[in-house]
Amino acid sequence: MSTEDDRWFTEAQTEGVCLGLRLGREILARKTPYQDLLLAETTELGKLLALDGRIMLTERDEAFYHEMLVHPALLGHINPRRVLVIGGGDGGTLREVLRHKEVEEAVLVEIDREVVQECRRFLGPVHRGSFDDPRAKIVFQPGQEFVSNARSEYDVIIVDSSDPVGPNLPLFGEPFFRDCREALREGGTFVCQCGSPFYYPEELKEVHRDLGSVFGYVEVYLGFVPTYPSGLWSFCLAGDQGVPRVPLREPLFSTKYYTPQVHRAAFALPRFVEELLSQ
Amino acid sequence: MSTEDDRWFTEAQTEGVCLGLRLGREILARKTPYQDLLLAETTELGKLLALDGRIMLTERDEAFYHEMLVHPALLGHINPRRVLVIGGGDGGTLREVLRHKEVEEAVLVEIDREVVQECRRFLGPVHRGSFDDPRAKIVFQPGQEFVSNARSEYDVIIVDSSDPVGPNLPLFGEPFFRDCREALREGGTFVCQCGSPFYYPEELKEVHRDLGSVFGYVEVYLGFVPTYPSGLWSFCLAGDQGVPRVPLREPLFSTKYYTPQVHRAAFALPRFVEELLSQ
Repeated sequence: MSTEDDRWFTEAQTEGVCLGLRLGREILARKTPYQDLLLAETTELGKLLALDGRIMLTERDEAFYHEMLVHPALLGHINPRRVLVIGGGDGGTLREVLRHKEVEEAVLVEIDREVVQECRRFLGPVHRGSFDDPRAKIVFQPGQEFVSNARSEYDVIIVDSSDPVGPNLPLFGEPFFRDCREALREGGTFVCQCGSPFYYPEELKEVHRDLGSVFGYVEVYLGFVPTYPSGLWSFCLAGDQGVPRVPLREPLFSTKYYTPQVHRAAFALPRFVEELLSQ
Repeated sequence: MSTEDDRWFTEAQTEGVCLGLRLGREILARKTPYQDLLLAETTELGKLLALDGRIMLTERDEAFYHEMLVHPALLGHINPRRVLVIGGGDGGTLREVLRHKEVEEAVLVEIDREVVQECRRFLGPVHRGSFDDPRAKIVFQPGQEFVSNARSEYDVIIVDSSDPVGPNLPLFGEPFFRDCREALREGGTFVCQCGSPFYYPEELKEVHRDLGSVFGYVEVYLGFVPTYPSGLWSFCLAGDQGVPRVPLREPLFSTKYYTPQVHRAAFALPRFVEELLSQ
């Protein structure tokens, strides 16, 4: 029954496909210097964070994304002591990084101070105090600027950006990937999300190609995030000394999505993704 | 820009989540004796078939579902000569079954004659003539009725139904599964779709439990279907002499989603699904 209290957040996932989430209370809606920020309760999926009209997370499925962005890179690295996160102002990626006891320092570089400020305030179950962890350092700066000043400093670099539009555009493409390569220590691993291979195959294809022209090894793997376009989500791992497709250690923490078996299985690509990458 | 030509089909995937597809030309909308049938062009995903307001398929992603419903069962069976399909009036499952050269007869039992009639007419790229294949036999009868009269006749039974509501309700639950077991030959395999483990965990849990009380072995595997709720879709394989989790043969046909690697990987369950099934 539709009433005036029946409010929906609708994301145009493509020109012809949209996903709607029924809303409860709106928490916050404002323009930051960089983007439109919305925080609201949904009726079924916990709190929603949207930037420029795109769903960044819901509390109910954010762990699927954050676990699959972080754990294959960190469990595939022999000793990930220093980790750099570009973007990820909600703190979910930082939270998963800090669950690895090998991590001595995690630097989060976010362009938009207000995202961190409001997520810190309203999304406790997402960041779970990770912003205040003694191993965490938060820097407000454009990611590409920060990375271009780093040399052989990080074991793992994680790019937790939204799509290659607006403030995230400089976080895609060869120049940025070259800087990331320079910022990695020997044996370092780079990982980024590459969008929906079903609705946005070109995005994955380009990132895969550009990473391949910078790093010696690139591997694509997939995860499932219900509130992202199509539900199927792609990630690229890259490095110069090979990229393990298996975990090197058992995870010593509980998860909602990740398992060592899921980690191995995530590299089995559906035929249409294989074909896309071989074109 | 919204105009009066801007029409959308919106499916309430849950009370609080909906998926919208932008429509082009409507092909057909009518009540059959069993359900509301809609066939329409979408602007991005090819033709849409919806029954009672639920997306059964779009041309763009139907192969993902049909391949993952059919090939693990058929390639996991040593010699699938006689195959029974319950439901699947669009012909997509039948098409995939008939690609296996081992199959000598495929019987499709569909309750709703008009679904077959209209899909045969308008969804050529889905059925690809499979209704007229000399190995195919089409029966219009409630599936549970047909199965209850079969004894040791089929190597594989595939239940290609929509959710356990309306005309599909009798295709779930222990009595029906017992009849399917009786209808299978020795070494036979049963497979059915079990919905979204994210939005409808109870459905998967119940089917898994009921199959487990009937068959000696039950295995859950997952696939990805962008236009189904949450995108993540579950299937149950069952049998009395074990259920192989690997293909026994190479597929001798081209696919859009299935690969032997994807087949093996599909049994790696995210933690939340593992937990659901062990409760």
